[in-house]
Amino acid sequence: MRFATFEHNQHRHVGIVSGDGLSVQPLAVSDSVAAQGVLGLIALASDGAALAELSAHDAVAMAQVRLLAPIPRPRRNIFCVGRNYHAHAKELSGSVFKANAADPAAWPIVFTKVPECVTGPGHEVRLPAGLSEQIDYEAELAVVIGKAGTNISREHAQAHIFGYTIINDVTARDVQMRHQQWDLGKSFDTFCPMGPWVVTADELDGADTRVRCWVNGELRQDARTRDFIFDIPALIETCSRGITLYPGDIIATGTPAGVGMGMNPPSYLKTGDRVRIEIDGLGVLENPFR
Amino acid sequence: MRFATFEHNQHRHVGIVSGDGLSVQPLAVSDSVAAQGVLGLIALASDGAALAELSAHDAVAMAQVRLLAPIPRPRRNIFCVGRNYHAHAKELSGSVFKANAADPAAWPIVFTKVPECVTGPGHEVRLPAGLSEQIDYEAELAVVIGKAGTNISREHAQAHIFGYTIINDVTARDVQMRHQQWDLGKSFDTFCPMGPWVVTADELDGADTRVRCWVNGELRQDARTRDFIFDIPALIETCSRGITLYPGDIIATGTPAGVGMGMNPPSYLKTGDRVRIEIDGLGVLENPFR
Repeated sequence: MRFATFEHNQHRHVGIVSGDGLSVQPLAVSDSVAAQGVLGLIALASDGAALAELSAHDAVAMAQVRLLAPIPRPRRNIFCVGRNYHAHAKELSGSVFKANAADPAAWPIVFTKVPECVTGPGHEVRLPAGLSEQIDYEAELAVVIGKAGTNISREHAQAHIFGYTIINDVTARDVQMRHQQWDLGKSFDTFCPMGPWVVTADELDGADTRVRCWVNGELRQDARTRDFIFDIPALIETCSRGITLYPGDIIATGTPAGVGMGMNPPSYLKTGDRVRIEIDGLGVLENPFR
Repeated sequence: MRFATFEHNQHRHVGIVSGDGLSVQPLAVSDSVAAQGVLGLIALASDGAALAELSAHDAVAMAQVRLLAPIPRPRRNIFCVGRNYHAHAKELSGSVFKANAADPAAWPIVFTKVPECVTGPGHEVRLPAGLSEQIDYEAELAVVIGKAGTNISREHAQAHIFGYTIINDVTARDVQMRHQQWDLGKSFDTFCPMGPWVVTADELDGADTRVRCWVNGELRQDARTRDFIFDIPALIETCSRGITLYPGDIIATGTPAGVGMGMNPPSYLKTGDRVRIEIDGLGVLENPFR
């Protein structure tokens, strides 16, 4: 199933997206569940509710709703993986990955984005005027955790995945690098477009799908997740080692080659640009930058 | 005032600690406010409530309550500052701060700890057997934000501080370094003792107080916050640059020289060790390690 969070007639809903993507059926859940979007559904499911059995209202045309990020406010910072495609490791080996180009496959790099920087499909990403002139996109498949666990082995990792969504890990490159730890340069307000919905794990093979990203119609990133340096089970094993993962946690799996910083000369985002990300089997996440 | 979160007769309360520290007066707040501890009070205060006018129940002897972390579950990851005392920058210049020893004062290093690793005064910190043998302490003054803001200038920073508490930024040194970004090595379950309470900003001069830390009675860290590389207004300015800070956010200000990794040879924590942190004007945070 594909679960979306959306506004219709000034109310927030979570619902099931139709097979053709042209309509969405609001689920009959409490306002407090709907307020959390798909995170509310994940909480219900982890308490034992069968999501497929929730009653639903009449379908609404997709054109009549405003999609929000499927998880508008994650329960804590989003785990994000750096350097997870070899070609991307290479393109930034002289800058972001300077200190560690020698041994790119040793351990995953994991940093975070604050939950409040999440924004929805089609919503504006605000360029932080005066704070950075080096704003870059990073198209990423994101894993949404459905079942809590600590020290989850790679063999058991799949059972902890609720589903997948798309994230644009927007980054202020100069801020990322000057603070050495990356969290600040990754967490500016509106720097985490997410959507268009969450596809459940039974409907998408996260291990081999295609991730593409266009800027103003120009294809910049195009890779398959089978080219990950660290696959999804390895990432879940890494993030849960000694650290309890909770239902609703999000792990962004890293970006392919083709970011603006890797171009010669580097090309950063400016007012009026549109970044469109498509992941096969998932959908499209497109955002204007202002 | 000093606000504590505690359990008494199987109920969670927030209350005001008496001048002599021997008793605590539970405040008459709703269960949902009490569940959040001092974070609930901060939410009330930021909605305009006068905390001094909240009615209170009879005082309870401190010996009869179990103190919890004043904010048992922060609203998002805790912002933590690395390398904020010159002597500490020097002691780890060959390891943790290797890549950047040349220019130690350029920009603050900011990473995060997950909210769920917070634990209370006196509670056990669990050594992660089999995952790391390099567990280290870091005594730190933590700033608790009371008023939301974005792009807070250093001139206005003081008005955004609700108060202060103590944090032990427990760290798995090998994990911290192997992932390059530090969040994982700082976020193991129980790796953030916090307490004993929150002292409001009017009662403590965070800009000049004494931070000490003992391991099994041996003094290891002893410094004054006036020796910060980046003072508290600079840290608030840094963390809020392009990133909205919210009431209840926590910024740990970095640790003085004297960590176990800086000793020759390095000395890490083992089962049965007790780490005691005292900050003048704030109190004592002591935890056993098992």
